[in-house]
Amino acid sequence: MALIVQKYGGTSVGSVEKIEAVADKIGRFRDAGDDIVVVVSAMSGETNRLTSMAQEIMAYPTPREMDVLLSTGEQVTIALLSMALEKRGYAACSFTGGQVKILTCETHNKARIREIDGSNIHAQLDLGKVVVVAGFQGVDENGNITTLGRGGSDTTAVAIAAALKADECQIYTDVKGVYTTDPRVVDDARLLSSITFEEMLELASLGTKVLQIRAVEFAGKYKVPLRVLSSFEDGPGTLISLEENTDMEDPTIAGIAFERDEAKLTVAGVPDVPGVAYEVIGPVSAAGIEVDVIVQNAAADGTNDITFTVKRSESERAKEILDKVRESLGAREVVMDKKVGKVSLVGVGMRSHAGIAAKMFKVLSDESINIQIITTSEIKISVVIEEKYLELAVRALHSEFELGESEPQS
Amino acid sequence: MALIVQKYGGTSVGSVEKIEAVADKIGRFRDAGDDIVVVVSAMSGETNRLTSMAQEIMAYPTPREMDVLLSTGEQVTIALLSMALEKRGYAACSFTGGQVKILTCETHNKARIREIDGSNIHAQLDLGKVVVVAGFQGVDENGNITTLGRGGSDTTAVAIAAALKADECQIYTDVKGVYTTDPRVVDDARLLSSITFEEMLELASLGTKVLQIRAVEFAGKYKVPLRVLSSFEDGPGTLISLEENTDMEDPTIAGIAFERDEAKLTVAGVPDVPGVAYEVIGPVSAAGIEVDVIVQNAAADGTNDITFTVKRSESERAKEILDKVRESLGAREVVMDKKVGKVSLVGVGMRSHAGIAAKMFKVLSDESINIQIITTSEIKISVVIEEKYLELAVRALHSEFELGESEPQS
Repeated sequence: MALIVQKYGGTSVGSVEKIEAVADKIGRFRDAGDDIVVVVSAMSGETNRLTSMAQEIMAYPTPREMDVLLSTGEQVTIALLSMALEKRGYAACSFTGGQVKILTCETHNKARIREIDGSNIHAQLDLGKVVVVAGFQGVDENGNITTLGRGGSDTTAVAIAAALKADECQIYTDVKGVYTTDPRVVDDARLLSSITFEEMLELASLGTKVLQIRAVEFAGKYKVPLRVLSSFEDGPGTLISLEENTDMEDPTIAGIAFERDEAKLTVAGVPDVPGVAYEVIGPVSAAGIEVDVIVQNAAADGTNDITFTVKRSESERAKEILDKVRESLGAREVVMDKKVGKVSLVGVGMRSHAGIAAKMFKVLSDESINIQIITTSEIKISVVIEEKYLELAVRALHSEFELGESEPQS
Repeated sequence: MALIVQKYGGTSVGSVEKIEAVADKIGRFRDAGDDIVVVVSAMSGETNRLTSMAQEIMAYPTPREMDVLLSTGEQVTIALLSMALEKRGYAACSFTGGQVKILTCETHNKARIREIDGSNIHAQLDLGKVVVVAGFQGVDENGNITTLGRGGSDTTAVAIAAALKADECQIYTDVKGVYTTDPRVVDDARLLSSITFEEMLELASLGTKVLQIRAVEFAGKYKVPLRVLSSFEDGPGTLISLEENTDMEDPTIAGIAFERDEAKLTVAGVPDVPGVAYEVIGPVSAAGIEVDVIVQNAAADGTNDITFTVKRSESERAKEILDKVRESLGAREVVMDKKVGKVSLVGVGMRSHAGIAAKMFKVLSDESINIQIITTSEIKISVVIEEKYLELAVRALHSEFELGESEPQS
């Protein structure tokens, strides 16, 4: 008998009918003898409905009250799912974040979990109940309701699994698991049966939007075995594991992530003195614009070009900021290219395999794709290229690195 | 500077626009220097929306989970109202029932308040904030969410006023206050400037649906000055006071209540032995059918007729039950009249004034209205009559007892 924490997102519980289907699925685990703690999100659409009411009142709603408002979304789901379980004869008990209790810091709208008291959940499990917990929410030390920010239900599930020392934390989504790359781009993208936490972190942050990155970090830190699988189809999903697959035939590359809709900004002719990188990036970041790849290359003439990418939708704002920065820094010019994309190879195997980068560059060269930026980390190589070549690049790399379903696998 | 507890019902907070109007109203009290605690209901329609989702799952939803579900309704309102106050520059802080905390018994769906801890509210008032509390809900000793049943927000407001020793508890509704009778039936029905708790109890239970009866009981018990007034129009409303108006010219009768859509059931020829009343009423009541007037008259032949009234919509079910009871009791027959109504004169002055009953009967006799049942209490006389004469009876009594606006008043 295993203790399993399951998390179902907003799409999985988006209607009474879907909630009933989730109850059926949970019932099958109970029948098999497992103890189940379920973490749920708000029904899809509910968070937007609540947010738009708040914004009718004020553009930037009071953070404390926004959390009071939004936390009702999950509270509705826990009640309805508990009823659906009871209807099927499975004793159930719902808990809000405060009832658990999930103690967070005081930062409303993006609180971080400090501690989870497992005793209330354990007491109900001991009574043979399915425990249904509201994701995304907690309380601070003074009993104020807090929320973890969008997608925080994944983090709730992992944190509860860690607190309870659960055997597995299962994240149910609308995809079957983690693929070598986006199946909508590459037909024979392969479902990975397992992947390491580090690889998952790189893939998640690079655009495979399966799991919230904080949840993966959390799971890695507390060594919680994490599995991503589909709410709607049966299947083993992808296990995110602590250990590297030691099989010698293990593919070096786990997957290929990519990001569309990026823009590249270059501040050219920046004086080569300490602190300029901060003076360029600092104001952009302070304006709440997320900066992705950053590269800097000192030129021979004692000036620097600092280049970085942002989401295309934020590029004009970033440009305005940089134009002011350019003046005060005495830099030469600001150049923007709004049509770039990023492709990344990810894999822990890269550490020990030379030549991955070379092979990647050759593949792109063979396709006559010009590389604008290269950045690397221990387990990742990213290139920024003209956006129109993005899919071609992904397909070519996927095939050359033999990641597809039709390829021989370990 | 007074401490005022205000309660706004579902209609008063039925949309974002109406919530903004409530915030304006509260702001005027703040500007006048009063400390304000606001108790709110769920936005109108919300409770029904939540209930219907639950009933899609099960006809009789798990009581504990129903409370988890329904309590989100008020939680949404407290957040939105607090935002609307903040927008206007009035510092505000919302509290759920659990956050206050409002301790109740463990009976889900119709919990009773045991104790209210005023310290969290006081702390926020001391910071100069408007405190916005979710009505209708509390927590039991184990931290489970409970609800007080429909209309329970009135009770929350009164209980908080009692706990805080507030100067006044104001219940905002969609009527201007308590009238001598229903203004839709009698054109010159007069708004009462004050009424005693006892009178209000009789009027409320008899169909003047202004205030939840439990709230009135509570206010009487804890001596909370209670005022009923309109959310939408300015005006002093009706004060429900502890003391009888001692003015010698005080009208003897406070008002006339009436109830349509009743049905009368008589079990005729019941043996005149101890316990038969219970054997007749017990099964009806056990079936959840609310019984109103009950009269019994022993006949000379050693049998009894036991008559009572129920809501017309429940009369057929009551009849079925009684048909079985008749058999087992050996009673003669069950007679049902589905078209009756009840008219009641209410007034504490009745105690000391003889002749009210006689005058009432004469008025009805003058209008050729046959009285089917008479029941009396200390401050009330009720008659059951054929329903078609109900409005005629109310108008005639209202006029004869000089309750109208056009009548001379004290």
